[in-house]
Amino acid sequence: MFIKKAEKAFLKTYDSSVFEKLSVTTDLLVFSISDLKTNNYRKLSNKVMSVFLANRDQFPFKDCWSLPGGFVSPKETLEETAKRVLREKIHVDDLYLEQLYTFGEVERDPRMRIISVAYMALVERSDLPYSLQQSDNWFNIFREDNKIILRNEKDSGVEFDLNMPSVLAFDHQEIIKIGLERLKNKIEYTDLAFHLVPNEFTLTELQNVYESVLGKKLLAPAFRRSIKSKVIPTGNMTSGNGHRPSELYCYKNNEA
Amino acid sequence: MFIKKAEKAFLKTYDSSVFEKLSVTTDLLVFSISDLKTNNYRKLSNKVMSVFLANRDQFPFKDCWSLPGGFVSPKETLEETAKRVLREKIHVDDLYLEQLYTFGEVERDPRMRIISVAYMALVERSDLPYSLQQSDNWFNIFREDNKIILRNEKDSGVEFDLNMPSVLAFDHQEIIKIGLERLKNKIEYTDLAFHLVPNEFTLTELQNVYESVLGKKLLAPAFRRSIKSKVIPTGNMTSGNGHRPSELYCYKNNEA
Repeated sequence: MFIKKAEKAFLKTYDSSVFEKLSVTTDLLVFSISDLKTNNYRKLSNKVMSVFLANRDQFPFKDCWSLPGGFVSPKETLEETAKRVLREKIHVDDLYLEQLYTFGEVERDPRMRIISVAYMALVERSDLPYSLQQSDNWFNIFREDNKIILRNEKDSGVEFDLNMPSVLAFDHQEIIKIGLERLKNKIEYTDLAFHLVPNEFTLTELQNVYESVLGKKLLAPAFRRSIKSKVIPTGNMTSGNGHRPSELYCYKNNEA
Repeated sequence: MFIKKAEKAFLKTYDSSVFEKLSVTTDLLVFSISDLKTNNYRKLSNKVMSVFLANRDQFPFKDCWSLPGGFVSPKETLEETAKRVLREKIHVDDLYLEQLYTFGEVERDPRMRIISVAYMALVERSDLPYSLQQSDNWFNIFREDNKIILRNEKDSGVEFDLNMPSVLAFDHQEIIKIGLERLKNKIEYTDLAFHLVPNEFTLTELQNVYESVLGKKLLAPAFRRSIKSKVIPTGNMTSGNGHRPSELYCYKNNEA
């Protein structure tokens, strides 16, 4: 076909520098659920959402907390870059991953124009290598009214109010806010919550996950009705200390 | 502060070519509602969703239909690029616009690596310049089962089945599919539908818009109950031909 030939000739001589190129990165918003220790030994430990942040060891924003990220290389898809960042920085390979939003403010990086495609990942903490489960990279997320507070899980003195300007590197606090909003909207009409619990969980644990993501308390009977069709009992019971054994459930669609 | 000074020095000598740069574009998915002419003069004309496509006058994909788009320049935000494309190609300035998704397959453009940030715009047809209302760029969208058919509004012989490979330029048929899915999901829990109707509309017209976006018929009484809180009667009536006058409504939140 003539047009195919003409297109080939066009591509052969195409000057890809006609339009100025830009740098592109992906930033990773990794959410998980942490146990929030309480003082009362009989009380079940509460669950709280947390996000993984990295302390920057180089400029710009040296010593600031930031989302893990990396540059997209020319031969890599956006998702491949996101997965590479997860492997390199969090040492995991297979997480629930979805594209969140692309951030393109002109001055968002002081080095140069960088467009960042943010991805949201969800991980059940016990699926991570032990050192990462226990690392000082996790920040618990507390919400009251419109406030969002991040508090370091290991050092409660390291705390950020996301409504204050520039407490994290780059525009990463905006990315976190948009990710929290996305997760909150999606958890009610999708099954995303099951990426945040172990294979076996009690209904109270599951409710705690929903409560932490939604940022509000739920009524147990209504909650149990709403998720009834999504879970099945495994026949196992918890063997906890200081409280009665509870039935363990699993996610229905995980069943073969 | 020492660290500020050190950061300044770092930025001054930063070599932005360390990581290879890429090309970034935005592609615009402009949805609107068209009147679908019926043969029965007494019947209200039906509404059908439509999408604006441009016929490419240059390589690559010369003579193929594609989404309008443009390269992101270094001093432009993504949204500014999207708005510029709308101004240049559709001659409108103020449309509902939201970022849809970023497409980053390595080989999606035969020229070079191009990442495209797709935006979805919604427009009420009568808000466009007359020439664009009547242009041959509009493709009606018909859905049956899992089939999606685009049919040119002016020339019904120009028709594409989006499930067939490579009927549009680049990955633009995938972008259209993802946009349709997004709109379908959002129309039920947002007020997006009101961007697709004139300021005054009948409830039947509004229902037609929902039906066209959702790709299914709705029951009138249930539909009217579900949108009751979002509309108010304007006191005006249609003065149509061949059918009884109907009450006109407007979107509640447009009221001052």
